[in-house]
Amino acid sequence: MVHFESDYNNGAHEAVLRHLVETNDERTQSYGDDRFSQQARKLIREALEAPDAQIWFLAGGTQTNATIIDCTLQPYEGVLCAETAHINVHEAGAVEFTGHKVIALPAHEGKLDVEELRTWLKAYYADDTAEHMVRPGMVYITFPTELGTLYTAEELRALHAVCQEYGLLLYVDGARLAYGLAASTDVTLPLLARLADVFYIGGTKCGTLCGEAVVFPDGQCPSHMLSRIKRHGALLAKSRVVGVQFEALFSKAGNETLYMTIGRHAVQLAMQLHRLFVERLGYRPFIDSPTNQQFYVIPNEDLKLLRRHIGFEVWCPVDEGHTACRFVTSWATTAREIEELELSLG
Amino acid sequence: MVHFESDYNNGAHEAVLRHLVETNDERTQSYGDDRFSQQARKLIREALEAPDAQIWFLAGGTQTNATIIDCTLQPYEGVLCAETAHINVHEAGAVEFTGHKVIALPAHEGKLDVEELRTWLKAYYADDTAEHMVRPGMVYITFPTELGTLYTAEELRALHAVCQEYGLLLYVDGARLAYGLAASTDVTLPLLARLADVFYIGGTKCGTLCGEAVVFPDGQCPSHMLSRIKRHGALLAKSRVVGVQFEALFSKAGNETLYMTIGRHAVQLAMQLHRLFVERLGYRPFIDSPTNQQFYVIPNEDLKLLRRHIGFEVWCPVDEGHTACRFVTSWATTAREIEELELSLG
Amino acid sequence: MVHFESDYNNGAHEAVLRHLVETNDERTQSYGDDRFSQQARKLIREALEAPDAQIWFLAGGTQTNATIIDCTLQPYEGVLCAETAHINVHEAGAVEFTGHKVIALPAHEGKLDVEELRTWLKAYYADDTAEHMVRPGMVYITFPTELGTLYTAEELRALHAVCQEYGLLLYVDGARLAYGLAASTDVTLPLLARLADVFYIGGTKCGTLCGEAVVFPDGQCPSHMLSRIKRHGALLAKSRVVGVQFEALFSKAGNETLYMTIGRHAVQLAMQLHRLFVERLGYRPFIDSPTNQQFYVIPNEDLKLLRRHIGFEVWCPVDEGHTACRFVTSWATTAREIEELELSLG
Amino acid sequence: MVHFESDYNNGAHEAVLRHLVETNDERTQSYGDDRFSQQARKLIREALEAPDAQIWFLAGGTQTNATIIDCTLQPYEGVLCAETAHINVHEAGAVEFTGHKVIALPAHEGKLDVEELRTWLKAYYADDTAEHMVRPGMVYITFPTELGTLYTAEELRALHAVCQEYGLLLYVDGARLAYGLAASTDVTLPLLARLADVFYIGGTKCGTLCGEAVVFPDGQCPSHMLSRIKRHGALLAKSRVVGVQFEALFSKAGNETLYMTIGRHAVQLAMQLHRLFVERLGYRPFIDSPTNQQFYVIPNEDLKLLRRHIGFEVWCPVDEGHTACRFVTSWATTAREIEELELSLG
Repeated sequence: MVHFESDYNNGAHEAVLRHLVETNDERTQSYGDDRFSQQARKLIREALEAPDAQIWFLAGGTQTNATIIDCTLQPYEGVLCAETAHINVHEAGAVEFTGHKVIALPAHEGKLDVEELRTWLKAYYADDTAEHMVRPGMVYITFPTELGTLYTAEELRALHAVCQEYGLLLYVDGARLAYGLAASTDVTLPLLARLADVFYIGGTKCGTLCGEAVVFPDGQCPSHMLSRIKRHGALLAKSRVVGVQFEALFSKAGNETLYMTIGRHAVQLAMQLHRLFVERLGYRPFIDSPTNQQFYVIPNEDLKLLRRHIGFEVWCPVDEGHTACRFVTSWATTAREIEELELSLG
Repeated sequence: MVHFESDYNNGAHEAVLRHLVETNDERTQSYGDDRFSQQARKLIREALEAPDAQIWFLAGGTQTNATIIDCTLQPYEGVLCAETAHINVHEAGAVEFTGHKVIALPAHEGKLDVEELRTWLKAYYADDTAEHMVRPGMVYITFPTELGTLYTAEELRALHAVCQEYGLLLYVDGARLAYGLAASTDVTLPLLARLADVFYIGGTKCGTLCGEAVVFPDGQCPSHMLSRIKRHGALLAKSRVVGVQFEALFSKAGNETLYMTIGRHAVQLAMQLHRLFVERLGYRPFIDSPTNQQFYVIPNEDLKLLRRHIGFEVWCPVDEGHTACRFVTSWATTAREIEELELSLG
Repeated sequence: MVHFESDYNNGAHEAVLRHLVETNDERTQSYGDDRFSQQARKLIREALEAPDAQIWFLAGGTQTNATIIDCTLQPYEGVLCAETAHINVHEAGAVEFTGHKVIALPAHEGKLDVEELRTWLKAYYADDTAEHMVRPGMVYITFPTELGTLYTAEELRALHAVCQEYGLLLYVDGARLAYGLAASTDVTLPLLARLADVFYIGGTKCGTLCGEAVVFPDGQCPSHMLSRIKRHGALLAKSRVVGVQFEALFSKAGNETLYMTIGRHAVQLAMQLHRLFVERLGYRPFIDSPTNQQFYVIPNEDLKLLRRHIGFEVWCPVDEGHTACRFVTSWATTAREIEELELSLG
Repeated sequence: MVHFESDYNNGAHEAVLRHLVETNDERTQSYGDDRFSQQARKLIREALEAPDAQIWFLAGGTQTNATIIDCTLQPYEGVLCAETAHINVHEAGAVEFTGHKVIALPAHEGKLDVEELRTWLKAYYADDTAEHMVRPGMVYITFPTELGTLYTAEELRALHAVCQEYGLLLYVDGARLAYGLAASTDVTLPLLARLADVFYIGGTKCGTLCGEAVVFPDGQCPSHMLSRIKRHGALLAKSRVVGVQFEALFSKAGNETLYMTIGRHAVQLAMQLHRLFVERLGYRPFIDSPTNQQFYVIPNEDLKLLRRHIGFEVWCPVDEGHTACRFVTSWATTAREIEELELSLG
């Protein structure tokens, strides 16, 4: 039995865990002032090539989205996103809980279309009743998306341009950023830091026990950010816990950070999985994902057999006889697990 | 240099950390369904002697207070507490952020006086304009308090009785519960489970990297609690992280849980510190605390010398020449640190 | 120049104003206990044939929607509506301000399709991740809709049935209810009171200076409703102001209440306007509205001429050469204004 | 039987009502753009001698306080006030509903003491943990207070100075402003406009059916204020209703506005009441109020007799044998009512 249900079905990457162990006895400051968080920030700034970046460590993804969106929007502003976006579907209304409307636009394989976005914005600003409507203040995207797809550098540049034109913040939810960066041919951390106004580097799904790193690349973080985060219940007293882990993630072995290594590893195994499912088993991809989340159209009669050998998630019904299912690799997935799967299924 | 600034200036208790390491490779369910969280709940129920208790694991203390208070109060209700209470002073308005008024009553060494509480409630219900006022829905106390003091069993019973009489929930913030239980002569976990409607067992300050365990002793948790927690951004995807740690905290070595061992250890060292400060150095206690937080009145001319040898927190000015300072022990404090301090100061 | 911009471009119906004048010197209780509000409630209950109905008077429409939706939903619930619904488009996020998601479904001439609603609900309850999503708690409709259209009694019964089946509240925004009731062939106030869990009878657009009457037909209003309303800033101290006006609206002259008379009057004039625009001027209806809001497709070259004689609102562009425009009658519109318009345009 | 229960137990001042009647048939713009609101703003600016003042019309007092406090504070800021303040006691938590803490300081006959305020602010800014606390953003006072007392011009100047020094907004709740201005020997509307950052001119209790006028004397109103107000459900569609009434209130008869006339009238009658109660009946003032709210210590055995002749409100018990009661005059109180009272009681 191998497990591809999610990328948070595991503990921490061994190097992250080791760093927690080796630093455990040290005494530190709290609420973000500990030396590990300071060092982690330094390493992340280097990886971003953004020396002025302000970085905050929070515990989890939904918390991060709700806190950052609320803290950066004006009270009367809403956030634009694809209708499949995590904040629109799977956060139990955490953004609305903070008083902001989530404005959903059509999703194209999980992505916003920049021309549709521009059309929407033009219509909004041309509308005589605009002041009676929720004002758009931010564009939210995920990289990779909930469907594993990626924006190209060109698409990100176009989104950035339309945000600049209309005075919107561009916010990138990077819950699975490691896998997106590893799979992308042209999007890098420094590029992201140039194009996004704020984004977060996911830890929980990319090698840590918990923790996400929020980045304001230009140092344009809202005033009194510590108070704002605390007010959202999102300030960690023992901040070192996330600091230590991100210090490990952004330390280099050879030429690259552990974060990139983790991403490449999971994507490679996802591609092996892809070959197994498509070439050997003849399943059709439900969506063409280059990242660690893979979606296949499975004949219903195969579901039971598959379940005997592999943990996965049912995504949605496709037709009477087929179901789309999700298979997720992570830093924790091993080559041996793929082999085992090949033996049992192939 | 020894560190008594806080009880969150450290990593995790070695047994907690070891359990994280030894379980790291296992694959688990998420969002609270993992087997470690299940097992931790079972152990906690046993320690509480409350077989129906519902238990939820959250990441941090302010988050827990805001989430639980908001989820258990009716929208038009407020929470009564001592004016020194953490929710009233040091949570940056996290409770008000959820829309509820914090109603502060006088504090007596950090504690509510039950007769003052009853008088307030009587006046509220006798007031013709009560429907125009925020309705009291809950009494919040901390055990131990922000000043290290403890309610006796009798005082807790009296608070419980007045809450029952007026239809209020009794909520106990147990951020430092281990230290309170170790120092109390008559309050036990089972007693707390009988008297409180909801409380939380603190992890962050009592041996874990992060995490708090919220307990509804009678299983009277609000409906759709998972959705409510997620809406507050407080649901951990990789829930095992807290589950594993609480499984360690509530495992027994000999006759007692690690949680009690941790509490006793810190309190013993706090008493040694007390003897050193009072008997050897002649400092006057600022408040009579039996727990791991100790407060002394320090002559201002001694502050500089003390700072050379010991990390601590300035609490408040006392008079022209004296300052109240806080010294905190924890599971991580060692007998050797106290000895070292005795040598350098004695 | 005649004015068809809106149905709130006027003062109060003369009978309403007269009643304000004749009762002005009387001294009354406040906060809803005044004798005029009591009497108005009695008259409304009679008109509804709902002797147990609880009735609250608020000042305006957006306030009413936000207050009632927030007070009747559980915190984790959202409200389903057509994407064109007022709460989704033109209330500046007032519902989200109270922490609830507005879940928009496709609109068909401003209306929800009951089968689409059922399909959505089935999918929601079949989804394994439903607890991570905003739970549907209410269906919001307007009668008439923002586009002047009406649900038939059969459609309302079907919506009621699906709400019962799935445990949802059915809420009807009746900002223009008088005009809807006058134009409908089968929907009456008593029917509405049987099918809706809560609705409001619009005053501001139907003859009063201000004020809306919220009805809980079965008397199932949330506990401590006065506190809840006050907390939303929606409780009027001088409640008689709305009470007096609704007493006038629901007093009878002959066989019908003034409210129905007002509705019939405006709808009759809207039908005259329709004949003028369609039969005499040859304009195409943008939508087939039987109520006091009329929408026509106007050739752009006619706009300037029209504007010289008539006040109206541009609704949206239709194509390169045409614009949809809205023309609204009300209790204040006179037969003479229609004649004047015929003379100047015909 | 004469009625002194409150100053909102009546309709509208006859001149206000007359203006509603005489303007009723006119068609106007909506949402604040109507010509009456424009004209009322002009008249108010003249009375304030504040040509740049921005003025918004809302429906009621609690709504105004919650909306304005929320719209002008940063999210992490709270509002300082006397513990007896309306927002702290009698608004059912409407300010906390918007997410802001109400920080109560001791009240001295309903008033803040400027030195106590300064001491509190100094302590806040000297506190190392200030970022974990709610930041003070505003000082809220009422003029007159809930106990009918008044700040002197000197006290207002001192409050203004401390607000300037600490970067706080000074907000004045003027629900009964007419009566305060009439009774004060040195506070005028122009002075208020120079010292307050924002305040409101009460209508509901001072002669209108409903409505309050919010003033930003320097024109420093938050951006997108219309959207902000609408989001709070506080934007009136038929805005003329309040505009017409304030046009009447700020029109002059002779040398003064109706607003001042109303204030003087009620205060004169309150002073007659005072003489009757103190000199003729020998009752002791509970508090020394120079405005339209009068408070006397009534022997309990007199309460029943009084109730036969006069409507009033029980304020609070004083001792075993006495009760403090409130008697309120208004624009609607007549000299004849006082005479009638003298005859029946004297």
